[in-house]
Amino acid sequence: MRSDISKRINVKEVGPRDGLQNEKIILPSDEKIQWINALSNTGLSYIEITSFVHPDWIPPLSDAQDVAAGIERHPEVTYAALVPNQRGLERALMAGIDEASIFMSASESHNRKNINKTIEETFPVLQEVVSTAKSEGKTVRAYLSTVFGCPYEGPVALEKVLNICDRLFTMGVDELSLGDTIGIANPLQVDEVLTKLLPRFKDGKIALHFHNTRGMALANVWSALQHGVTTFDASLGGLGGCPYAKGASGNLATDDLVFMLEEMGLDTGIDENKLRTAADFIEERLGKPLPSHQRQLQKLNQGGARFAK
Amino acid sequence: MRSDISKRINVKEVGPRDGLQNEKIILPSDEKIQWINALSNTGLSYIEITSFVHPDWIPPLSDAQDVAAGIERHPEVTYAALVPNQRGLERALMAGIDEASIFMSASESHNRKNINKTIEETFPVLQEVVSTAKSEGKTVRAYLSTVFGCPYEGPVALEKVLNICDRLFTMGVDELSLGDTIGIANPLQVDEVLTKLLPRFKDGKIALHFHNTRGMALANVWSALQHGVTTFDASLGGLGGCPYAKGASGNLATDDLVFMLEEMGLDTGIDENKLRTAADFIEERLGKPLPSHQRQLQKLNQGGARFAK
Repeated sequence: MRSDISKRINVKEVGPRDGLQNEKIILPSDEKIQWINALSNTGLSYIEITSFVHPDWIPPLSDAQDVAAGIERHPEVTYAALVPNQRGLERALMAGIDEASIFMSASESHNRKNINKTIEETFPVLQEVVSTAKSEGKTVRAYLSTVFGCPYEGPVALEKVLNICDRLFTMGVDELSLGDTIGIANPLQVDEVLTKLLPRFKDGKIALHFHNTRGMALANVWSALQHGVTTFDASLGGLGGCPYAKGASGNLATDDLVFMLEEMGLDTGIDENKLRTAADFIEERLGKPLPSHQRQLQKLNQGGARFAK
Repeated sequence: MRSDISKRINVKEVGPRDGLQNEKIILPSDEKIQWINALSNTGLSYIEITSFVHPDWIPPLSDAQDVAAGIERHPEVTYAALVPNQRGLERALMAGIDEASIFMSASESHNRKNINKTIEETFPVLQEVVSTAKSEGKTVRAYLSTVFGCPYEGPVALEKVLNICDRLFTMGVDELSLGDTIGIANPLQVDEVLTKLLPRFKDGKIALHFHNTRGMALANVWSALQHGVTTFDASLGGLGGCPYAKGASGNLATDDLVFMLEEMGLDTGIDENKLRTAADFIEERLGKPLPSHQRQLQKLNQGGARFAK
């Protein structure tokens, strides 16, 4: 094994939030709960279960409290939820989430479209959330969207990204997930961004959140792995995208990511058979095939995706 | 730009052969000819136009002579064709091809299934082709299949691969294309194989032929680019696969590959608009959507795959 690549990789499942929020079908709460319970059985150490944004904003996730209250809690799994502001955090805390995820964009236009504020106006709102969450003993993750490109502005200056990262870590954020919101990042760009970004935040945890819109997500993962990045977000079966970014279908699929990592001899702690069970479940409930390569292969081959070893 | 990555990349289009040979629809020769003419206009420097295997083996390509005779020849494009043996080569030479492509597998079972010979029995057949082609002033490319894994045998020993490469180069082959026939290669494996293989063949040209069956093709390209590899095979729109390998749908798509390379600032010499025109043509003739990400995006966005620059 190459010494620059970490052996243990954390895959963070965002499907119940980032996936379901973009589905037209609104699943009943008990089916979401069953799905999250199935995900908890796979060996995943982190599941983002829902979003505590105002119920009018994202109707498919308006049952956040019921879902958080209904799931089984495995002690080795962190159950996180998205919160946009103090009100959302209060609901999330009442629902007993382990970690709060806040979010903003690296580009003004996307930030304004997504959360109706300028970047500068966003910081105090997030600071309040972070301070409260920390005082309640919770960890906080921050999503930074459009790091590798914005659907409205095009390329985003790295200096802008670095400044926002600075401010988020100063705010007390525990982990920062850099988002390729529209799936435009290429592996050379990931290499260049991480070459400048990682040395600046040696003490801060950096995760990467890729979309596979143009087929480059796993190439970007390979690029990031070579920089020692150990945490990647993904959505089972490739469910979901970003509702405000044109053409931004396609979260990186958890099953495709785990397959590649395990094939490379890295350790995700995830049982691929159980992952398949969880994907079968959600696919059946949604009544449509999920787009990941693993799902497509399973349909062709009845499951023969890997050599017997 | 990183100094380890070559700026100029050769993309070799194999769609008219590797793509069409796996289609159920048999296109009329004049439509194939029109498609190849459209490909010749894109800036591609290499097109594998057909296969001179026995017409009974691959009925969709039984019109090889007509296609080779009918296309316009651009002086800056190399028009190649697959040939299995001396008889095929003779037909290809009569049809005026520029380069002959021979093929064999790195694993016994796949070699036998694909060409009905043991690996050892295959060498003299190929030697005859190479010697004749060279004496006629033609260049020869060799495809080596199942380098990264065999659908029947699983992992393939690198020592076996290296020995076959040795023999093919000794035979006089000009370029060797290493095939991930079933799309099982991962980028760490590509890194490991190339680390051992490339220093051994410093004077021989090595190309890579990836399939995107499990979504890893572009990750593998990024891995190979970091080793200084400059030549990649691809099929426009992701057309085709390998008819003898279960689940091996999905050649790496030329349009997805070119998009990534150009996004990284590398130079393919290919005009993406003209590539799109050629893809529109073949998609319409086949009457079905092609699976590449670029094709899917075009349908969603009516063409807005890249930022205005």
